[in-house]
Amino acid sequence: MKDSIKVFAPATVANVVCGYDVLGFAVNAPGDEVVMHRVEKSGITIKKITGDDGRLPLDAAKNTVSASVKHYLNHIGQPDLGIEIELHKKMPIGSGLGSSSASTVAGLFAINNLLDNPLTPMELVPFAMKGEELACGYGHADNVAPALLGGFVLIRSYEPLDIIRLPHPEGLYCAIVFPEVDVPTRDARQMIRQKVFLKDAVTQWGNIAGLVSGLFLKDIDLIGRSMKDILVEPVRSILIPDFYKMREMAMESGAVSFGISGSGPSVFAFTKTEANASFITQKIASHLTSLGISSKTYVSPINNNGPVILD
Amino acid sequence: MKDSIKVFAPATVANVVCGYDVLGFAVNAPGDEVVMHRVEKSGITIKKITGDDGRLPLDAAKNTVSASVKHYLNHIGQPDLGIEIELHKKMPIGSGLGSSSASTVAGLFAINNLLDNPLTPMELVPFAMKGEELACGYGHADNVAPALLGGFVLIRSYEPLDIIRLPHPEGLYCAIVFPEVDVPTRDARQMIRQKVFLKDAVTQWGNIAGLVSGLFLKDIDLIGRSMKDILVEPVRSILIPDFYKMREMAMESGAVSFGISGSGPSVFAFTKTEANASFITQKIASHLTSLGISSKTYVSPINNNGPVILD
Repeated sequence: MKDSIKVFAPATVANVVCGYDVLGFAVNAPGDEVVMHRVEKSGITIKKITGDDGRLPLDAAKNTVSASVKHYLNHIGQPDLGIEIELHKKMPIGSGLGSSSASTVAGLFAINNLLDNPLTPMELVPFAMKGEELACGYGHADNVAPALLGGFVLIRSYEPLDIIRLPHPEGLYCAIVFPEVDVPTRDARQMIRQKVFLKDAVTQWGNIAGLVSGLFLKDIDLIGRSMKDILVEPVRSILIPDFYKMREMAMESGAVSFGISGSGPSVFAFTKTEANASFITQKIASHLTSLGISSKTYVSPINNNGPVILD
Repeated sequence: MKDSIKVFAPATVANVVCGYDVLGFAVNAPGDEVVMHRVEKSGITIKKITGDDGRLPLDAAKNTVSASVKHYLNHIGQPDLGIEIELHKKMPIGSGLGSSSASTVAGLFAINNLLDNPLTPMELVPFAMKGEELACGYGHADNVAPALLGGFVLIRSYEPLDIIRLPHPEGLYCAIVFPEVDVPTRDARQMIRQKVFLKDAVTQWGNIAGLVSGLFLKDIDLIGRSMKDILVEPVRSILIPDFYKMREMAMESGAVSFGISGSGPSVFAFTKTEANASFITQKIASHLTSLGISSKTYVSPINNNGPVILD
């Protein structure tokens, strides 16, 4: 049995356009790292957090990583195990890229591995959802499930929890731009209308059925045609600077699709080449700079593996 | 070039549970037959209709078969071709099983074949939709597309028309019961609420994404878990005698799923064996008999081929 481990877990794009609340996928970069040591002294302590500008709690009861590890240890029947955690934030907080999820998933993957993997990644999902509950106010799975499983993931149902791993075509790249403005998840959720027209819902479920079909058929054009959101995006895009201009720039540059990541403010485009993804991120970042808004950009294929052990 | 042809086109189940307005599939039985002859005299005539109890118009301008054939001939550039049509209704009208669609599709498949197939089955869909417009008041595709293409079909979008043929597992059987009561399609549509809760729409699109995934993965249990409709069925089921009792009987007898076909009153169950499908149709039919309601029953695998040429 190992005494220490270092784990990377990936960022994720949730609320994938027409797949609001049910569809997410993981990317190779960015992501977070957790270093975990078994220690003599009973209980969980957060030894160090880097890269968070002091924004995350060191109190083990309040930190999402330690809190979800605690749930896990209780479940496993080892509530008194001594654990020291270092969290290295390598991605921005509040970006809409599943920042809390990446940290939580790295922590759970680490503890499960230290204990010789009593649970499968799928079985870790409910524990990671506990972390999301602490971070966002509700225990959603559309970031943690793709972060744990890799790839595209459908949350068909929460009660009972029913998670389906979907395939995707090779050669689909993701261009991400995080405009550095604040869009708290809670506010972004509260903006959304509670009632919608049935005919709009029908359009949306035609599109999600088309997107899922496109993923299985590895039909990138169908994926692109289906990635439209007439219900949530029109509201959420209001909080994102120059959203429709960014979309226009991406689509005119050859993107397959463009949308909001999670509840924003990050946006993402699918592209058919890595070079096209780089071109689009640079073009959008330059535009944001011209508006006086700094941004971070990421280019990555869709992540296939979920968390990985480093070193 | 042939001078006459006899074509069978299959019945279809549209509005497949969580796939309201976007998903349909074809069955092997029942269905309709069209006999078509080329004649000297210019124009389209309906020579004979059998099996309709005199309910369908012999006027070629009002009959859905001749009207859609007329649209087709205009498009093909042969508006004056002499055509005589016999329509043999082998399935009930107003059953929710795509009765008008089966007739229209048989007619279009027949004329296209007589002219050596200038159009593909997919290209015939818009002409068949013209027939549906005449029959139902709006030109929907979720009966005619599966009747033309066979199998499960997704109508992702109407503008532009985007139709995707979906796979399905072998060994999935369909048990259909048509309780002989009247549920006009127009009334059934008007009952549906125009606005729905977003959270219910999310549940629905999680389920349609699950159903589409199940079809691709050939996962019959996932198909069954996903076939739930919380938006339309609760309203439409009111018009169907003892709907929830029929569901209970089907599910307790081992059905994979149960739902309304089209706008009803027919209901259908998916089963894993033909014997189970037969058992369920008989059980439900007996129950309806005990309520004083006569019914017709059909057992069939999912149709893979669309229309076929007879003789």
